[in-house]
Amino acid sequence: QVKELFSDFSFDQLLDVWRSLSDDEATDIFLHLSPEVKLDLITELEIEDQEKIIGKLSAQGKRSLFQAMEPDDLVDIVQSVSKEVRRTVWENLDDESKRETLFLLRFDEDDAAGLMTPRYLAVRSDINVGHALAFIRANSAKVELLSDIYVLDELQRLDGVVSVKDILSASDETKVSEIMNQRVISVLDSTDQEEVARTLETHDLVSIPVVDQENILLGVITFDDVMDVIREEQTEDVYRMGAMSGEADAYMNSSIWRLVKKRVPWLIILLLLGTVTTNVLHHYESIILGAAFLFMYMPVITQTGGNSGSQSSTLMIRGLATGEIVFRDIGKILFRELLVGLFMGGITGLVILLRSYFLPPGIDIYAAFVVGISLALVVFISNLIGTLAPLLIHRMGFDPTVMSAPLMATLIDVAGITIYFETARRLLSL
Amino acid sequence: QVKELFSDFSFDQLLDVWRSLSDDEATDIFLHLSPEVKLDLITELEIEDQEKIIGKLSAQGKRSLFQAMEPDDLVDIVQSVSKEVRRTVWENLDDESKRETLFLLRFDEDDAAGLMTPRYLAVRSDINVGHALAFIRANSAKVELLSDIYVLDELQRLDGVVSVKDILSASDETKVSEIMNQRVISVLDSTDQEEVARTLETHDLVSIPVVDQENILLGVITFDDVMDVIREEQTEDVYRMGAMSGEADAYMNSSIWRLVKKRVPWLIILLLLGTVTTNVLHHYESIILGAAFLFMYMPVITQTGGNSGSQSSTLMIRGLATGEIVFRDIGKILFRELLVGLFMGGITGLVILLRSYFLPPGIDIYAAFVVGISLALVVFISNLIGTLAPLLIHRMGFDPTVMSAPLMATLIDVAGITIYFETARRLLSL
Ligand SMILES: [Mg+2]
Ligand SMILES: [Mg+2]
Ligand SMILES: [Mg+2]
Ligand SMILES: [Mg+2]
Ligand SMILES: [Mg+2]
Ligand SMILES: [Mg+2]
Ligand SMILES: [Mg+2]
Ligand SMILES: [Mg+2]
Ligand SMILES: [Mg+2]
Ligand SMILES: [Mg+2]
Ligand SMILES: [Mg+2]
Ligand SMILES: [Mg+2]
Ligand SMILES: [Mg+2]
Repeated sequence: QVKELFSDFSFDQLLDVWRSLSDDEATDIFLHLSPEVKLDLITELEIEDQEKIIGKLSAQGKRSLFQAMEPDDLVDIVQSVSKEVRRTVWENLDDESKRETLFLLRFDEDDAAGLMTPRYLAVRSDINVGHALAFIRANSAKVELLSDIYVLDELQRLDGVVSVKDILSASDETKVSEIMNQRVISVLDSTDQEEVARTLETHDLVSIPVVDQENILLGVITFDDVMDVIREEQTEDVYRMGAMSGEADAYMNSSIWRLVKKRVPWLIILLLLGTVTTNVLHHYESIILGAAFLFMYMPVITQTGGNSGSQSSTLMIRGLATGEIVFRDIGKILFRELLVGLFMGGITGLVILLRSYFLPPGIDIYAAFVVGISLALVVFISNLIGTLAPLLIHRMGFDPTVMSAPLMATLIDVAGITIYFETARRLLSL
Repeated sequence: QVKELFSDFSFDQLLDVWRSLSDDEATDIFLHLSPEVKLDLITELEIEDQEKIIGKLSAQGKRSLFQAMEPDDLVDIVQSVSKEVRRTVWENLDDESKRETLFLLRFDEDDAAGLMTPRYLAVRSDINVGHALAFIRANSAKVELLSDIYVLDELQRLDGVVSVKDILSASDETKVSEIMNQRVISVLDSTDQEEVARTLETHDLVSIPVVDQENILLGVITFDDVMDVIREEQTEDVYRMGAMSGEADAYMNSSIWRLVKKRVPWLIILLLLGTVTTNVLHHYESIILGAAFLFMYMPVITQTGGNSGSQSSTLMIRGLATGEIVFRDIGKILFRELLVGLFMGGITGLVILLRSYFLPPGIDIYAAFVVGISLALVVFISNLIGTLAPLLIHRMGFDPTVMSAPLMATLIDVAGITIYFETARRLLSL
């Protein structure tokens, strides 16, 4: 009865309701899906859900599922499931899949080789298009994506690439060597997955070959797995910018303990850094007690400084991540941000001057000027800190996403409070 | 001389140094690139750089460049360049390109139709594979990407799809109708580009057909343009989370005025919201003047509350964006965050209690307890605000990325200060 309800569902709807199903319902529905949808679904699900389904399949069901899976997806599952499930998976693989899985397991998950499939089509350069086409027609069912055919030499080294499109456009007598492209864009097995993504994107490639140091072809990375890398890396960056450790694991499937571990370390580091403000305020205690209006404006001044700093650090971090901003441009960037900061400081200073003079709790015009001038200075300087910190961190070879908005705000709190009370002390001769 | 220097450069290096070239150098090098690299480069460059190069090309150079460009890339350029450059582009198009450009210009840039190319290969379902293959071989050079062949009925309605791979695997006598897939995954011309991206990603499609309300095939979107959409939408989200208006324009090419316009409105809104803290502090003035230690710990308490709030709002916003978190799960999420908040409140409260009692400026044990208990409460409640606000905003149909960390921190400042001084007042009977 349940499965009838679902037969009209689109794949997206299916994915959407999957989590609200009981284990038995989920298995029951899974068994009745078409082989194609089964594959799509299992690779989209979280590890826990994958384990549940695999655990409930019959030996025959397992064998046909694993048989149909792409080797790279199979390895991802083998790498992430529990020991027991891994054993069941292993027992139900055919010899060819076992061989492929063992080969892929040698490589690091986050490198190019961790994304590749060992299944590709390759020909020699001296055959003609007619032969190549016959070869492709006989073997195309074996590969996930039919787009590029690789040309290898006798030592399996990558010598060129020819697209199926170019093969189909050429006449049967044309030699492959005449239409192949010898300037192959490839990546090393050890290339970081983020760099793989950037290369594939810049050149708009459907797939990219992976070679070793000797230029021997190891496998091929397809665009769909690169899209997943882009999402995953983006989640990592967003988490870091929100002051969490950056692993892109799914929220709903993380245990509470895992969430705490992701968040508490940063919270405590920022807390201890932040207590420096206590010492700074202690230093200005007598000034504050002498002019009570000062502490009333402190939160809004440090907060606004923090905001201007996290705006500029966000711009820098994003620009560095997309490669649009390079350290070499630091002079130009500083010049621009000096002007931007001057303008933003001026306008926010004016706004708070007017707000504090005209609206309750009213303060006198001198006090309002102190507040306005301090804010202008704090915004200007925070903007520069937010600009420079990510650039310098990146320059030193670290990941600038750790210059999260919260870290920025904490650092700027200390600077902001000092600037604020020093300005007040001088202007009001306290 | 310059061009010789560049002949050995990889495309990525070329792109990297492009901005540091003078206009004349850039044009000179551009003229000597291969037609293929010219195309890759011009679509990767920013509008300003595109305009400069187009402006310096000869009539012949323009004609061959525009001739070789894909229609969707051409329209992107026509839509963004200045009026004068647009006229030069127009004058150098052949009739076919003019027709295609006019057709594509009818659609919105951010919709599915704004991403499509009108060039695709289509056949009728009653022909056999041998015929289809002959048709493909004769026409494959016309399309950007040879992957799917569409099956249309007499009224040009999309009836099915067959991959080139399946055509090549089948025997010549097989009818297309036997191997085509009638459950075509397509998008409407008005579908938002983010939804297009999600559909293409879930199903790992190289391209996706765009149809109108009558299911008539209008064009095809290729994966590479979807990758650009993903990056662009990510940049927008990151900007919004950093409290800036979300347009994903490039930093280095934005004018100073444009940067200011992107940042100042949010800065002023947050500033005016933030001055509520002034009124709250005014309310507690007598308490603070009676217990000076209180204001010294205020910044670190509100900051830590803000951090815990922006951690949870980051988790919610990202989960909502990837579709992993849905409103329906609010009960489960709240339960988890109650526990996480309890733990985080407890541990940060303990840390600040110890820190404030043992390290300078030392306070007595009662005061340390007040600070610790307040922080625990503030962290716990901030975490709930950070969890609930994005979920509710999303539920109401708005974009939760506006719940940026800075907005979160500003709202939590007000809540945090109130909780802090109320706790102090009760515990110390002030
Ligand atoms: Mg893998
Ligand atoms: Mg691209
Ligand atoms: Mg794959
Ligand atoms: Mg895949
Ligand atoms: Mg990264
Ligand atoms: Mg990574
Ligand atoms: Mg391109
Ligand atoms: Mg467009
Ligand atoms: Mg996918
Ligand atoms: Mg395109
Ligand atoms: Mg494109
Ligand atoms: Mg968006
Ligand atoms: Mg958008």
